[in-house]
Amino acid sequence: MKNVLILGAGRTVPSLIDYLARLSGLDIQIRVGDISEQLANQRALGYDNVTGFSFDVTDQSQREQEVLNADLVISLLPVKFHIEVAKTCLQYGKQMLTASYITPEMAKLDTEAKDKGILLLNECGLDPGLDHMTAMAALDYIRLKKGGEVFSFNSYTGGLIAPESDNNPWHYKFTWNPRNVVLAGTETARFIRNGKYKYIPYHCVFTRLDQVQVAGYGNFEGYPNRDSLKYRELYGLENVETMIRGTLRRPGFCDAWNVLVQLGLTDDSYQLEDLPQMTYRDFINTFLYYHPTKLVEDKLCEYLNIDPNGQVMKQLTWLGIFERRPINLAQASPAVVLQHLLEQKWKLEPDDKDMIVMQHQVGYRVNGKRHKHITSLVVVGDDHHQTAMSKTVGWPLAVAAKLVLSGSLKQKGVCVPVTAEFYKPIIQELTRLGVKITREETQFDDSNP
Amino acid sequence: MKNVLILGAGRTVPSLIDYLARLSGLDIQIRVGDISEQLANQRALGYDNVTGFSFDVTDQSQREQEVLNADLVISLLPVKFHIEVAKTCLQYGKQMLTASYITPEMAKLDTEAKDKGILLLNECGLDPGLDHMTAMAALDYIRLKKGGEVFSFNSYTGGLIAPESDNNPWHYKFTWNPRNVVLAGTETARFIRNGKYKYIPYHCVFTRLDQVQVAGYGNFEGYPNRDSLKYRELYGLENVETMIRGTLRRPGFCDAWNVLVQLGLTDDSYQLEDLPQMTYRDFINTFLYYHPTKLVEDKLCEYLNIDPNGQVMKQLTWLGIFERRPINLAQASPAVVLQHLLEQKWKLEPDDKDMIVMQHQVGYRVNGKRHKHITSLVVVGDDHHQTAMSKTVGWPLAVAAKLVLSGSLKQKGVCVPVTAEFYKPIIQELTRLGVKITREETQFDDSNP
Repeated sequence: MKNVLILGAGRTVPSLIDYLARLSGLDIQIRVGDISEQLANQRALGYDNVTGFSFDVTDQSQREQEVLNADLVISLLPVKFHIEVAKTCLQYGKQMLTASYITPEMAKLDTEAKDKGILLLNECGLDPGLDHMTAMAALDYIRLKKGGEVFSFNSYTGGLIAPESDNNPWHYKFTWNPRNVVLAGTETARFIRNGKYKYIPYHCVFTRLDQVQVAGYGNFEGYPNRDSLKYRELYGLENVETMIRGTLRRPGFCDAWNVLVQLGLTDDSYQLEDLPQMTYRDFINTFLYYHPTKLVEDKLCEYLNIDPNGQVMKQLTWLGIFERRPINLAQASPAVVLQHLLEQKWKLEPDDKDMIVMQHQVGYRVNGKRHKHITSLVVVGDDHHQTAMSKTVGWPLAVAAKLVLSGSLKQKGVCVPVTAEFYKPIIQELTRLGVKITREETQFDDSNP
Repeated sequence: MKNVLILGAGRTVPSLIDYLARLSGLDIQIRVGDISEQLANQRALGYDNVTGFSFDVTDQSQREQEVLNADLVISLLPVKFHIEVAKTCLQYGKQMLTASYITPEMAKLDTEAKDKGILLLNECGLDPGLDHMTAMAALDYIRLKKGGEVFSFNSYTGGLIAPESDNNPWHYKFTWNPRNVVLAGTETARFIRNGKYKYIPYHCVFTRLDQVQVAGYGNFEGYPNRDSLKYRELYGLENVETMIRGTLRRPGFCDAWNVLVQLGLTDDSYQLEDLPQMTYRDFINTFLYYHPTKLVEDKLCEYLNIDPNGQVMKQLTWLGIFERRPINLAQASPAVVLQHLLEQKWKLEPDDKDMIVMQHQVGYRVNGKRHKHITSLVVVGDDHHQTAMSKTVGWPLAVAAKLVLSGSLKQKGVCVPVTAEFYKPIIQELTRLGVKITREETQFDDSNP
């Protein structure tokens, strides 16, 4: 019998639990702990071998007791708590999985983990996670099977709404942490294109878009994502001429989002004055110049050079930002007010299906001839519980857990799943579970890299 | 005999020393200490009663010895060092003056200073300093002499180049810390206009300008400065309908500066890749989209919608940002590269004269009738040593020092010079020294508040 400890009972947990609890061949007992006992119990409902319980990561004795009793720990807690869990795992010689980026503190545990023969696997969800795995699968295929030299790597991922549930002019709903969506891109984007380093400050990120097509799913726009440059080393692409990672949205989203950015609505650095008295219309007016008589709509269109009858104004009006409706918040930054509004408008309804879209475009040379290899991945959710996001984060963790429990992984230390040992079995299993991954080969075309 | 200890021998010190050293009636001995002994000695040159010496503020025993021997301490060190000096002053019962904003730590010393009967006077330079004093002089005049109720307060200050030395298309040279100029405004601007709160994110600050005229000196543009709202309490204007503080530049400056902001050249958050190989032209290109053949100039004009034959392109070209000239820096952020270039282009030449311009526009009501009171202050420097900046920072400190040494100040504790006890004698003496302050009364005009 194997005991799996899952810490955190958030939105990714249903797919993770469902896979592990039904696994044949291994007798698995799962304990899922969350600061909310009710949420933990809810996740356990319907499974004989899953138990929910109240868990407080800052309670050292509880943390030690639970880790001690487990064969494997999967932490889905907020990022800042992983490090304490990891240290406790090292103390008791337990393996650990997370879907979060490796922090500098986590990286420092590498030597100790290797010495003790412990695997601390991070970045094993969707993004980071499946992006690494599918990218490395494509790169290894090109390098090893085709003998190709990779000169260009563009990679895009988006958490979106499935076409059948797409019923608003933004073609977007929240399928993930709304705060992260509101603050997305608030860092200078850094990448390299055709051998030239490029930097885009936050206020221009949503105006510098790449066009992306996915067969059967139509068109998308990709805006550049923070620091793409650091992926060169991780993927073994130190001399690549193009390295861009971006986030996908449906066409038209970024134009309208850019208006919110230009106004300053995504600013989280200060608290608004007089907020309790404000309507959404007042809120918007506070970012526009003063005029004794002009309408808020007219001032906005003049200020940011927007067509009053165009698509962007339709999107903004649909959001309700011009309505004389009270905000009903006591104290908040602009970003928090915006999130509060968007959570009402971009809410995933019970029957809504979300959709994960990912595409890697790899340019490579064989004997001087240039080719392009495209990997596309699309996952559609079942409903607002079994979302595509939950599957694509939860399943890679679940399959990694199976591999750890069955003793089939050799790597130790603080790892990221970029080697075939991880990506081969995980991608294979995800394909079996219904994740659609397609691969195309075309000629490389400069005009549309 | 009175001993004055001046800590820091930077650019404001010549005017401060010159005033204090020549003061008749008080027998003053001045010690000026700096981490650079050479600079300290240079400041002492030509005065019998001034001695330069090597001073390290972090050396506790030296700090204590020097403070113990002084009757008054004036700290012109970087802001972060004031607090240690202030604590040492409290320890030995010495008064202290600075030209810096009160930090929260400094504010905490208020009770102890009051208990010991010690004055720790801060914000007694130009901005902060003369701005407070001339503003309060105008406000007290309106409230006490005119019986007016103030409803509007706009205040602008600029450190600029005098018309006779203005020979570049930016109408600007560095007369103060270049790094502060490059990073100016990198905070959301917050103010209130006609009863409406307004917030402007950094990337829009240089597009939201007020027009300012100063009789005899022509036209200026004011961009809004960080948090104007906190001045309401300081100036006793809690219910004012308009409160805006801004920075003055000559017309046309902000349009061109805005291009540098839009590109991301003022970003100080990351280090550029491959900098040692870069020319200024490469540097600019790194912020523009990739194109296989288009010229950098053409890409810039298209990207930011700039007239290729207009004034902004003339300013940018004059700066040399399109030149194939090596930058010659090993490692730097975009902001540091920009500063490096600007220091070459906006250098104050030995015969150049700088100019300080300040204007307060106060709207007030008497018996329902609206009036406007305008205070304008202009100071022109003598040369690149005795600058207007040095005078307007150094002289208020110098006069405050005289007042302290002659025992004519009653206020104790951590203070800002916003009461008549400070501003009356200081403004009077500055006027005698040649600082031109003019006052006008007009009708209040809504179209040009």
